[in-house]
Amino acid sequence: MVDAAIQSGTADRDCMFEAFARRLPTGRRYGVVAGTGRLLELIRQFRFETEELTWLAENSVVRTPTLDYLADYSFNGNVWGYQEGEAYFPGSPLLLVESTFAEGVILETLILSVLNYDISVASAAARMVSVSLGRPIAEMGSRRTNEHSAVAAARAAFIAGFASTSNLEAGRQWGLPTMGTAAHSFILLHDSEEEAFQAQVDAFGAATTLLVDTYDVPAGIALAVRIAGPELGSIRIDSGDLPTVVAAARAQLDSLGAVNTKITVTSDLDEFAIAALSASPVDAFGVGTSVVTGSGEPAAGLVYKLVAHKGHGDDWISVAKTSTAKLSIGGRKNALRRVDAIGTAQEEIILLGEGPGTEGQHDSRSGLERALLVPLIIDGTVDARFLGPAGTLRARAHNASVMQELPIEAFRLGRGEAVIPTTYR
Amino acid sequence: MVDAAIQSGTADRDCMFEAFARRLPTGRRYGVVAGTGRLLELIRQFRFETEELTWLAENSVVRTPTLDYLADYSFNGNVWGYQEGEAYFPGSPLLLVESTFAEGVILETLILSVLNYDISVASAAARMVSVSLGRPIAEMGSRRTNEHSAVAAARAAFIAGFASTSNLEAGRQWGLPTMGTAAHSFILLHDSEEEAFQAQVDAFGAATTLLVDTYDVPAGIALAVRIAGPELGSIRIDSGDLPTVVAAARAQLDSLGAVNTKITVTSDLDEFAIAALSASPVDAFGVGTSVVTGSGEPAAGLVYKLVAHKGHGDDWISVAKTSTAKLSIGGRKNALRRVDAIGTAQEEIILLGEGPGTEGQHDSRSGLERALLVPLIIDGTVDARFLGPAGTLRARAHNASVMQELPIEAFRLGRGEAVIPTTYR
Repeated sequence: MVDAAIQSGTADRDCMFEAFARRLPTGRRYGVVAGTGRLLELIRQFRFETEELTWLAENSVVRTPTLDYLADYSFNGNVWGYQEGEAYFPGSPLLLVESTFAEGVILETLILSVLNYDISVASAAARMVSVSLGRPIAEMGSRRTNEHSAVAAARAAFIAGFASTSNLEAGRQWGLPTMGTAAHSFILLHDSEEEAFQAQVDAFGAATTLLVDTYDVPAGIALAVRIAGPELGSIRIDSGDLPTVVAAARAQLDSLGAVNTKITVTSDLDEFAIAALSASPVDAFGVGTSVVTGSGEPAAGLVYKLVAHKGHGDDWISVAKTSTAKLSIGGRKNALRRVDAIGTAQEEIILLGEGPGTEGQHDSRSGLERALLVPLIIDGTVDARFLGPAGTLRARAHNASVMQELPIEAFRLGRGEAVIPTTYR
Repeated sequence: MVDAAIQSGTADRDCMFEAFARRLPTGRRYGVVAGTGRLLELIRQFRFETEELTWLAENSVVRTPTLDYLADYSFNGNVWGYQEGEAYFPGSPLLLVESTFAEGVILETLILSVLNYDISVASAAARMVSVSLGRPIAEMGSRRTNEHSAVAAARAAFIAGFASTSNLEAGRQWGLPTMGTAAHSFILLHDSEEEAFQAQVDAFGAATTLLVDTYDVPAGIALAVRIAGPELGSIRIDSGDLPTVVAAARAQLDSLGAVNTKITVTSDLDEFAIAALSASPVDAFGVGTSVVTGSGEPAAGLVYKLVAHKGHGDDWISVAKTSTAKLSIGGRKNALRRVDAIGTAQEEIILLGEGPGTEGQHDSRSGLERALLVPLIIDGTVDARFLGPAGTLRARAHNASVMQELPIEAFRLGRGEAVIPTTYR
């Protein structure tokens, strides 16, 4: 596309691209924006290096004028978006990219890859957090997704309220709290469960978490308390019918005087399994596969569309595909969320025909309409507040605040429609 | 685990770890091994660098003896595995890692991340290929998965028989055939569909693929043939009720004399949609979301378990978790596939108590039992035949041959059981 547009003289037309989701994942009532902090850093660094240009040339993928263009590429346009951690709904204009056609279209795959995956994880994670009743959830799914996705998933889950991750690289890169546990292999490595528990307590003290379900859970619990004493920090249970097993484990721990010993459960948990443990004396959850694969919705379904360009003049021309299926709504947009007097979200308002950054015009509509689009990149310069560990913490805090704003029906797990309507003005 | 094992003196025990799937994805009849070539290169390069060691030390994740161990880490053990592209079934010992405990357990996350994702993609892709009736399928899903996963997905789909990918980085890294198409944004960028088609034909000639569904499909087809002439290479349709639209498009193209113009369809295709187009005059498919997310099964469900160790002596001791749920079968294993006289697979045979590389002992069982485990890494040295573009081509060829061997029932799309039984001897 860039090659043909350079040849036809349209590559440098001013354009507005928009990333949005036509619908939420099936049955979900809201989605959670994530990936922005990662994406901004990746856009800032996005260049074509010699080895890539050489390959493109040798394989005749593009012609010389395009190679020259790519060799000089860096993004110098503007990007506005929903803040990372924000809730979103069908049609919410999650990211707006204003640049030349070539500059903006080259970023399509990067933008959608990052947002589709990270939003999928954060949207699933938020549902798990909302049914965890304040009990901490650790992200432990690195083994169930691509090795790079694993780091991104840990970050997205943390933004949506997970307490920690077992992915140490995510701790190093993004400043996330990390945790670790012993697996069955550690128990099986030793000559007996007793020797394994003793080795772990020798290494980490009684406050450690002992995995008690390798051979027999009641025997494992008795052994764990005998070795670590009633000061044992925690036990972990990774199999079995959890409500039954957890209730019995709590009673056994209490009878052994280990009344402060916590119970951590892990075992193919998802939001439904966590909800089913509402009344169980679980102290902490570990979630793997379901969170890193978006709990049944591994891609958020965002698309990236050209919605306006300047053509030959200075005026924006709205454009959209108009054949019968997969309709899009063209034009530059702004977005507000209307909240009622007690601060509960009521409506997602998309302002048609206005660009982002115009919400100052809407002061008269009262403070009950919150502007959703913030400038992320202006003239190629990224707002550094959204980057790195600090940006990740900011996103988590924003998400916590936004979750308070959603109507309570948002947190029902059963299938339903978006919890607030999207309307166009 | 490594920290505690170093302290307890068990870290250097000889161990055998095994990666396997307890079951196939729901309703699937076989799975396809993929990721091996990527994994071998990643194991070869696996090191802890200064920045990682510094972070581990500063955050007190592990203690000094462990930091010293990690600083010197490189994998020096043995790995056997099913060849990349091989079919597998529940319990198939897909990867066997023989090393010290510390050496092998450190690789757990890397091994499972790579295999769980790549196998998910290849297993879905194989189903699509088997119902495509020989018509080429292009992988176009980069935008619907993490930006690094996208490259891995392109490679895994190619191994399972996809013809090409739109991911140029996958072309560069792995030598895959690449393709590109124009999106709706290219049409919308221009002042009219006519100008857009003309620009594309000027750039690439009449053999290009024109996207005809931006405004009105019949009008788009008429325009495409008028501009490119009946030599037009291909049209692409990305929306609508495909069987109806495709049939009408073929008739229209033929009536315009464009009898050799091909029809490419893309539009949320999966194996079921491709099968539904069996009788339609489609010449090529483009598949996105469904293949890169494993078509409903985004993680293959492989686990990595310690199955044997040498304890204090030279004899292997089989170990396995024995509590009630998530049972594993301990011990070193070998694996054979029994085929009948006409070469159709009949049975997956797991030999218990034998290590890999012992299949020479089974010559008397006749040539109708094919050995499944091949040495991939011996004493830390990777077999280079499985690496890079050459290894990827080898995997694709192996997959093509293995697909011929499966019973025809393997290719039914409806839910069912594994097409051959797994038996233990």
